[in-house]
Amino acid sequence: MLFTRSILTLFLVRHLSESTASEKQRATAEMVAKAAHVSRVAVSRAFNPSASIKAEKRERILKIASELNYTPDRAARALVTRRSHLVGVIVPDVCSPWESQEIDALTTALQAEGFATLLFKTRIDLSMDETLLTYMKGFNLDSIIAYAENVTPETLSRVLDRAVPIYVTYDQWEAADNDDTGLLYDRLNVHQHEGIEQAVALLHGYGVKKLAYLTGKAQSRANTARLTTLRKVMAARGMAAPIICEGDFSYDCAHAAVLDLFKFGEKPDAIFAANDEGAFGALDALRFELGLRVPEDVKVIGFDDINQSHWRSYNLTTVKVDLDLRIKSLIRLILRRLKQPDAPPMIEHVPTRLVVRGTVG
Amino acid sequence: MLFTRSILTLFLVRHLSESTASEKQRATAEMVAKAAHVSRVAVSRAFNPSASIKAEKRERILKIASELNYTPDRAARALVTRRSHLVGVIVPDVCSPWESQEIDALTTALQAEGFATLLFKTRIDLSMDETLLTYMKGFNLDSIIAYAENVTPETLSRVLDRAVPIYVTYDQWEAADNDDTGLLYDRLNVHQHEGIEQAVALLHGYGVKKLAYLTGKAQSRANTARLTTLRKVMAARGMAAPIICEGDFSYDCAHAAVLDLFKFGEKPDAIFAANDEGAFGALDALRFELGLRVPEDVKVIGFDDINQSHWRSYNLTTVKVDLDLRIKSLIRLILRRLKQPDAPPMIEHVPTRLVVRGTVG
Repeated sequence: MLFTRSILTLFLVRHLSESTASEKQRATAEMVAKAAHVSRVAVSRAFNPSASIKAEKRERILKIASELNYTPDRAARALVTRRSHLVGVIVPDVCSPWESQEIDALTTALQAEGFATLLFKTRIDLSMDETLLTYMKGFNLDSIIAYAENVTPETLSRVLDRAVPIYVTYDQWEAADNDDTGLLYDRLNVHQHEGIEQAVALLHGYGVKKLAYLTGKAQSRANTARLTTLRKVMAARGMAAPIICEGDFSYDCAHAAVLDLFKFGEKPDAIFAANDEGAFGALDALRFELGLRVPEDVKVIGFDDINQSHWRSYNLTTVKVDLDLRIKSLIRLILRRLKQPDAPPMIEHVPTRLVVRGTVG
Repeated sequence: MLFTRSILTLFLVRHLSESTASEKQRATAEMVAKAAHVSRVAVSRAFNPSASIKAEKRERILKIASELNYTPDRAARALVTRRSHLVGVIVPDVCSPWESQEIDALTTALQAEGFATLLFKTRIDLSMDETLLTYMKGFNLDSIIAYAENVTPETLSRVLDRAVPIYVTYDQWEAADNDDTGLLYDRLNVHQHEGIEQAVALLHGYGVKKLAYLTGKAQSRANTARLTTLRKVMAARGMAAPIICEGDFSYDCAHAAVLDLFKFGEKPDAIFAANDEGAFGALDALRFELGLRVPEDVKVIGFDDINQSHWRSYNLTTVKVDLDLRIKSLIRLILRRLKQPDAPPMIEHVPTRLVVRGTVG
């Protein structure tokens, strides 16, 4: 079998470019190297966006390759090198502002490293379709980043032979999971504690007595971790436990939930929203429907610091997770894992901090 | 060469799953079919999310396949069938609300048809890196959708052997391009005229005398087409030509540009923004910095009808392109082109209409 495999490999490298050729005849990498007066390796480097090579040299090689109609077949290379240069990203919802900012920054950073981003969406309840998971396996992904927190490491590792998934976790909440399962996955750990501590300190300093927490989706671990940390921080300050106001991360649900809260429930003097979009819904409900002033009557804090938070109509005080740091950390995890496939679980940490605008004081 | 190619193909189908196998031994599709008491074709269908097969049957086959450690290798299948099940999407900016809504809906719809979405970002000036284009070729894309309007059909067709790109065009502006080049590309044509006509009629009906057009990025064809159509519609109504206020589709630029316009330029009584995000920037500048009332002092209309347009703080009157229709049309183009690779250029049309909220009357 080994002998057959190596013969096959040789066949693949030499003939595959021909078997997938269009009508025109295709050149080989050797032909390009000869015509360009460079080494075979230089031709490889010219076609790899992340390999370092003088721009002028790369341009010249690509030009000659184009004239000779040569192109490295990525599918063939994947089979030979076992690298697909594809990074999978599993999201529940691309167009929510927070996720789309992440995907945008991630796509740019990955492209610079020679990877392309393959997007997968989960079901509305954040779980994944079995068929889809199996289908993903066929893409031979180099790495996979899971934002969809209901996709457990067990589920993902069943379908990803080679790729070690990266999970975004919050505070130290999931340390136990990691130890129990014995499955290999890497982690980007977001330290929500600092930012939430600063937010509560500010509210406490402004004399807030009755804080309501406007939740995100119930199944979201980010949401659960946020609430757990918030309770701890408030208890440590001797503050009363937060009132729970149920949202689902969306503007519309937040708007309705806050209306209900003020019409039929306890009236808080501050609202800490699980995310910025929810905070916007809360702000608009307070100002337009309830005729209350922010921050004078009710203070509002969000979470994420998405781009829209600085829009003058919202001017939202919020907890920020540095997007640049996050992305750099994810890229580091991806590259280190590819270099050391058998290393023990890796972890990167990302801090949070409060961004003060106009909705608290 | 033909003989070698067919021998190679047989090798690929039989042995490749073994050459890319992990430590465990891998089953073949025939073994799975036998164990599940189904046909070989049924096994194929079970692994294709878009093929129709009884849910219970699919589940049973996938379960047995999992136990036998069988998985179809997509890279190998791509080489054999020349289908990669990947659709490339070229965008300038994923996290702008309009593009991210599109990508979200497109990813969902494509997933339902058995495709995965591969994202590519262009440079800030909307052009594409040559290296990136060549790198894309290696992915053997089934189709590619270009929103980045500076990527010409010539540029794309150089690197996409098989895939016929789909361009989103506006009104009939680019009919000439299509005819002159002789290159094959399909089109989704957005009819901006109707929506813009309705918008101008409403403004005219409310007595607007001096309309300013807040532009998008200069290189954007969507922007240029919008302005051209706006001029025509206004001229047909005997209205004065629009004042040009230069934006770049972003909130921040719009905010600054509108401030300048009112402080140093002519004061319009209405602003028609090239997109909703620009309209938000205009609205906030008018209300917060300039102390003007909308719609009483100045009317504002946007374009796109992104999700945020209904947020109470903006409550924006805007021109809507039906997202559902758009996505269905794109999917139709992709599937028809895959069935008929040599058909002449195909085109789908998408209408626009005005959505009336609170910023005009």
